[in-house]
Amino acid sequence: MKLSGLIALGVLAAQEVAAAPAAKTLKQGHAHGRKAMVDIINGKAKSKHYANGTTAATCSDSNATSITAPRKNIWASLTGIEASSVVGWLFDQPELNLTAAENATSWDNTILLVEVMAPNKSDALPYLNGGCKTAPTRYAHVVLDNRASDEPNFQDILVGPLPLNNATISWEPLTFPYNKNNNTGKVRSLVADDDTLQSDWLAVIGASVADITLDLWNGTAMGLNNDTLDIWGIDPLWQEDGRVIRWDTFWNIPTDDFDAETLLPLGLFFKSDVTGRDPSQWSLEGWLYNDIFYNTTEEFRAAYYSPGFVKLGANVEGDWVRTDRTGPDEKFDERYPPTMIQPAGARYAVDKSENYVEWMGFSFYISFNRDTGMALHDIKFRGERVLYELGLQEALAHYAGNDPVQSGTSYLDTFYGFGPYAFELVPGYDCPAYATYLNSSFYVAETTHTHVSSICLFEYDADFAMQRHSTSEYVSVTKNNYFVVRSVSSVGNYDYTFTYSFFTDGSIAVEVRASGYIQSAYYANNGDYGYQIHDALSGSMHDHVLNFKADFDILGTANTIQFMNNVATSEVYPWSNGKARNTMKVTRSVLETEDDSRFDWAPNMQTQVLVVNQDRPNKFGNPRGYRVLPYTGTAHLTVQDSSNLGNAARWAEHDVMVTRQKDTEPRAVHAYNSQDVNDPPIDFSKFFDGESLVQEDLVLWLNLGMHHVPHTGDLPNTVMTTAHSGIQFMPSNYLEGDASRFTRSQVRIQYSDGVTSNVETFGQKDTVCELDFTPIEPDLYSYTGDVVIRKFPYNPNNPYYETDSVV
Amino acid sequence: MKLSGLIALGVLAAQEVAAAPAAKTLKQGHAHGRKAMVDIINGKAKSKHYANGTTAATCSDSNATSITAPRKNIWASLTGIEASSVVGWLFDQPELNLTAAENATSWDNTILLVEVMAPNKSDALPYLNGGCKTAPTRYAHVVLDNRASDEPNFQDILVGPLPLNNATISWEPLTFPYNKNNNTGKVRSLVADDDTLQSDWLAVIGASVADITLDLWNGTAMGLNNDTLDIWGIDPLWQEDGRVIRWDTFWNIPTDDFDAETLLPLGLFFKSDVTGRDPSQWSLEGWLYNDIFYNTTEEFRAAYYSPGFVKLGANVEGDWVRTDRTGPDEKFDERYPPTMIQPAGARYAVDKSENYVEWMGFSFYISFNRDTGMALHDIKFRGERVLYELGLQEALAHYAGNDPVQSGTSYLDTFYGFGPYAFELVPGYDCPAYATYLNSSFYVAETTHTHVSSICLFEYDADFAMQRHSTSEYVSVTKNNYFVVRSVSSVGNYDYTFTYSFFTDGSIAVEVRASGYIQSAYYANNGDYGYQIHDALSGSMHDHVLNFKADFDILGTANTIQFMNNVATSEVYPWSNGKARNTMKVTRSVLETEDDSRFDWAPNMQTQVLVVNQDRPNKFGNPRGYRVLPYTGTAHLTVQDSSNLGNAARWAEHDVMVTRQKDTEPRAVHAYNSQDVNDPPIDFSKFFDGESLVQEDLVLWLNLGMHHVPHTGDLPNTVMTTAHSGIQFMPSNYLEGDASRFTRSQVRIQYSDGVTSNVETFGQKDTVCELDFTPIEPDLYSYTGDVVIRKFPYNPNNPYYETDSVV
Repeated sequence: MKLSGLIALGVLAAQEVAAAPAAKTLKQGHAHGRKAMVDIINGKAKSKHYANGTTAATCSDSNATSITAPRKNIWASLTGIEASSVVGWLFDQPELNLTAAENATSWDNTILLVEVMAPNKSDALPYLNGGCKTAPTRYAHVVLDNRASDEPNFQDILVGPLPLNNATISWEPLTFPYNKNNNTGKVRSLVADDDTLQSDWLAVIGASVADITLDLWNGTAMGLNNDTLDIWGIDPLWQEDGRVIRWDTFWNIPTDDFDAETLLPLGLFFKSDVTGRDPSQWSLEGWLYNDIFYNTTEEFRAAYYSPGFVKLGANVEGDWVRTDRTGPDEKFDERYPPTMIQPAGARYAVDKSENYVEWMGFSFYISFNRDTGMALHDIKFRGERVLYELGLQEALAHYAGNDPVQSGTSYLDTFYGFGPYAFELVPGYDCPAYATYLNSSFYVAETTHTHVSSICLFEYDADFAMQRHSTSEYVSVTKNNYFVVRSVSSVGNYDYTFTYSFFTDGSIAVEVRASGYIQSAYYANNGDYGYQIHDALSGSMHDHVLNFKADFDILGTANTIQFMNNVATSEVYPWSNGKARNTMKVTRSVLETEDDSRFDWAPNMQTQVLVVNQDRPNKFGNPRGYRVLPYTGTAHLTVQDSSNLGNAARWAEHDVMVTRQKDTEPRAVHAYNSQDVNDPPIDFSKFFDGESLVQEDLVLWLNLGMHHVPHTGDLPNTVMTTAHSGIQFMPSNYLEGDASRFTRSQVRIQYSDGVTSNVETFGQKDTVCELDFTPIEPDLYSYTGDVVIRKFPYNPNNPYYETDSVV
Repeated sequence: MKLSGLIALGVLAAQEVAAAPAAKTLKQGHAHGRKAMVDIINGKAKSKHYANGTTAATCSDSNATSITAPRKNIWASLTGIEASSVVGWLFDQPELNLTAAENATSWDNTILLVEVMAPNKSDALPYLNGGCKTAPTRYAHVVLDNRASDEPNFQDILVGPLPLNNATISWEPLTFPYNKNNNTGKVRSLVADDDTLQSDWLAVIGASVADITLDLWNGTAMGLNNDTLDIWGIDPLWQEDGRVIRWDTFWNIPTDDFDAETLLPLGLFFKSDVTGRDPSQWSLEGWLYNDIFYNTTEEFRAAYYSPGFVKLGANVEGDWVRTDRTGPDEKFDERYPPTMIQPAGARYAVDKSENYVEWMGFSFYISFNRDTGMALHDIKFRGERVLYELGLQEALAHYAGNDPVQSGTSYLDTFYGFGPYAFELVPGYDCPAYATYLNSSFYVAETTHTHVSSICLFEYDADFAMQRHSTSEYVSVTKNNYFVVRSVSSVGNYDYTFTYSFFTDGSIAVEVRASGYIQSAYYANNGDYGYQIHDALSGSMHDHVLNFKADFDILGTANTIQFMNNVATSEVYPWSNGKARNTMKVTRSVLETEDDSRFDWAPNMQTQVLVVNQDRPNKFGNPRGYRVLPYTGTAHLTVQDSSNLGNAARWAEHDVMVTRQKDTEPRAVHAYNSQDVNDPPIDFSKFFDGESLVQEDLVLWLNLGMHHVPHTGDLPNTVMTTAHSGIQFMPSNYLEGDASRFTRSQVRIQYSDGVTSNVETFGQKDTVCELDFTPIEPDLYSYTGDVVIRKFPYNPNNPYYETDSVV
């Protein structure tokens, strides 16, 4: 197989991460979609403890206290033994016709993914609630990449029960979570021939216009190691009228280390019909340059060499694309900046074997999977479950432009997966040096890999208080310490920082912040789609929409959405002399059925959205609940009925969507919805079938997002000031008073006539220890990257790498 | 003069702070409005340096470096000499007929306020821009409380020039900033007889129903020192048909230290017509209990003693109103929590004599005044002015309810003033212990007082990065250090934390968070106005709306508001085969005139609001500017054409309002708008007279706010998780790239095959010093309160208290 020009760049898409042969995985190119995907780095495992990197506690360990979780983590990733045993067994099943990844061609079937199948909630609750003493039976969720066929497909199957017992194990098609028409648990693959496409199609077309690319940009894209140009294009592919169409464009390849290719578009586009598996049936359907469409290469070449042809400039790398320090020397900047420390040790507890966490009345489990990375489960506050599940479902980045590549790009990032790209966090930068770092695992080519230190847990102190009140006689102030769980996934050009925060008042926040390189457009006649931001560059407008599943269980599963509206009103009162007064009041209603359960935040935020349990009123008759509201700005998709997306992302159309919880609707999307956008494996809109939502088990599907029209300030990287979105869950009539009163991190100072008579600190120890703080960096030379657990057959006596903190 | 029952409580409203005799100031009650106002505490001055409270830097001072401001602070508060000289001179002007506060009765004229008059922008700019070498002439803004008349009024006058020279000084009515009909710089006073009202009206009425109050609540409000009940009511007073009407209600007085009276309403209301200055003409107009209106006391008493009269319960103090620690003992809570430190010393510089600050390319001046507290001026980034002025204008708390007191309450808090209530900050709680603390001053009864440590400045580290990007070969991450200026004003029951933040990417945030005691309603038949939250208590619904003036000067004063709208569209492209594609694009427009310049944030945040200078495009032809957008949620007033407010708060009706900057429109409101709501001193709506806004000097009036329907979680205090709102200003095409690239607080780690080959830290010193950190509280016994500067005549050789950091 001829390797494409992408090889030398280490460009790799998630599809290859999961599909290609192990030994050669890193050398596979990918012809479309998320550029600059990061190589998987094989390396040795190291044991690291950043927690002591900058501080030396003399009387208290800064590591979190170990505890034992009350239950098993039933969402825990497969162990190395579980995964390798499943792989070994699958290769023994002749009907699957599997080939090991390292030996597979594009006409072989391979195992793309082996991971845990999350238990059905109906099976999980009896165990979690104690009625059932044994955990739900574990199964493996396996994705097969069936390419030994004219109709290649991805197939989801279930394998189990686990641990593997040859007498009882079996596999079956996984269909119940999907709602595709004629659902068989399979979806067609449009990427089975990506290697061929790269080498025998795109590179050939690139070579066919080498004269022009050399003239325009002094470069070529011909599938050679010394190519200086790259070719890639839209995602998802156009799927219309039974055809599969792609648009591609040329990009300059940076020659230095910086990952800036998405800032270097060159403005020449071509269209291909790549329907079917026979490359001889593929056809080039035209060229576009400077907004002029040419039907054939000949037509384009003729125009190019004719008098008066307008040649546009190129986008070329330079300091403007490099993230390294540049700009004015600001006074004092060389001094080590303010830094959070944890002087008396961690104030939370972790069960690393079960990835279970407790902090100040909150407890939860952490899981990790390929599609969406980290998720939280069984979130309790003061012993009562608030959320059964809280986690990312999908991230859409919908671009628009006057050119077909930007217009045609609507990344559905779970296709690439957030799990494989959740890289090691940088201590002191992504999270405090004293944080607790957990590992995560992901599967590639029969091999389980570890991202060390890819989840962090830490407590922090907000720069402002939780509560305060000053009077003539005293002041009372409570600190605002909060707890954070974080993971960062760099899906190609963009780095998503996912943050779950927990506050002492019982509230919870979900936030996402984006950084990294924007995907830009070539600047030509496209002022209606962004700003010119460099010589021949437009900041391509795009909407980020990120869907989160929030499966609330407020004091049980029987919950109701209550709306409380602040409304202007004109009212006559018994005391108003018969005159009407312009004032306001609240009106209340409940969300009755799924017919009305997709909606947006109200104008002027005048409607509160509350998840309550009507059967559990407080002593004053008001149902206990949590309020759901935007925290730092949210957005849903601007585009209506996107031509790119078909039915693949109906979840992006509103701010809030509520469904009745069902075992058959565990996910809003399938990672391969992009492969058949009009009839995807999961069409979210099919969830809405009119069912009652009153005192039922409810799931809220909430969109975070931002409309991004990049300007010069997005160069070289978008900053997190610009790109952030968050949603908050706040107790509402949930307890009888403010929960944060529990903390000792408060003070009441009494004074009179300018003299303080008493300082009450409520028992918080303030002299437990001293510590030396030397303002140095953590030892960042211990940063590594990825670690591989050996392939099947698994040898427990000689694991290449194993840790109890891998989720 | 008979003192009311309020005396024993030290209850004091701002009006008294500014108006009453010096010696007795603290003993005056106030019959309406913001309850539980805090006494002014006289005490000795102390020099404090919290900056070293918890850290002992061994090689670097944690105090901010001193610098010299490039210009004088032309907004600086009057010095003690200036203020006392003005006071002395005014007392020599016979036509003013002034009486010293300590000798004044309610029929004497007094000086209510002496403070600096902010210079006109037209005078300030030539000095700030260097064209004029001398600062604008200073004048004092004086408010006279003219009560020696049947028509008492507050009068604004100008006195100057300063420093005082008997040959040149004069006074004149201050009229140009006001737009009242027949504007003379005066507004009627509705509070001239508040002492009489308290002693000779409310207490008498209270006594007249003592039999009933004893029966209902075992308490009385008769103006005696041992009263256990309190009486107060609506603000503003009703001003209809030439009458002045008040509604009052009874409250339980807490007997312990906690400031919880606003949680103890008792549900009995009475209406008075208090028009005019002759108490004999005042009339009691009825009673309200349990939603039943009685025309006279006799009628009420007859009903009360008739069979079947329904007596409702009382709200009584208890632990539920106390903020002290209560609730579960959470594991590890006794350990000292995570804490921010400043290990290498402050990285900002302050000129304390001019209250001028520099941090990482930003610079600004701080001012402080009675009405609105702290404001920022001449905010520059990299040497270019971004904002001429940024500061609070007014804070409205608009309540609603089925009872006349809640329905009638719409506090306009500058009536009380944010300056006098900006108390000493608690180090380690309100701001980090290492912050720089500045003092502020306020004027009461010919005396200048000092709030020590009432403004803090500090740098912090966000818990997340500013920028990051991971690739197969390197990871680049930049810290997110930001700078904060903060002041907290406790205006009665509510504590407002005001925060201005500056970020390394050039962005600025304005935030307000509220805590303290809610003002609650008696619970009876008012479910449409809130929740029952305790035995007989309703969380009275209210809207907070806080207006900020943002006088932008983007590269000069000629600025334009540009709207950039993300819109869904269906478009046919040259390359789309004639088919229309469902996609999106941007449309742009400019705000032409003041006819259209009051508007709300767009649904789904699809419209960007940009302040640009069209004459200063960047090299790509796009105007340089700043974007204005919500940061943590905003709100404008739900009520339309409020019966309480008349024309006093037209600024609260929209999210964003834009006017042409004028010397005659420096403020959106007057502090005494509440005294004549239908024809207030400043009717904001009169600013909008159709003028062009294209390339003019523009002022944005921006509303922060929150709709608050208190629930049980607001007991005993509202927490800042619930009550927060913020707006952000972000560079847009302002520089050629992201400004944050300048900082050395970033790292790039290069790696390959699991081994890190280089850690580039860009020159940030990481071993400059070591410091010992002992996790103890700052010495909070040094907390004091207020300090008095001696009265006029000022003796510079013996100042009671003076500091160069008083603003």
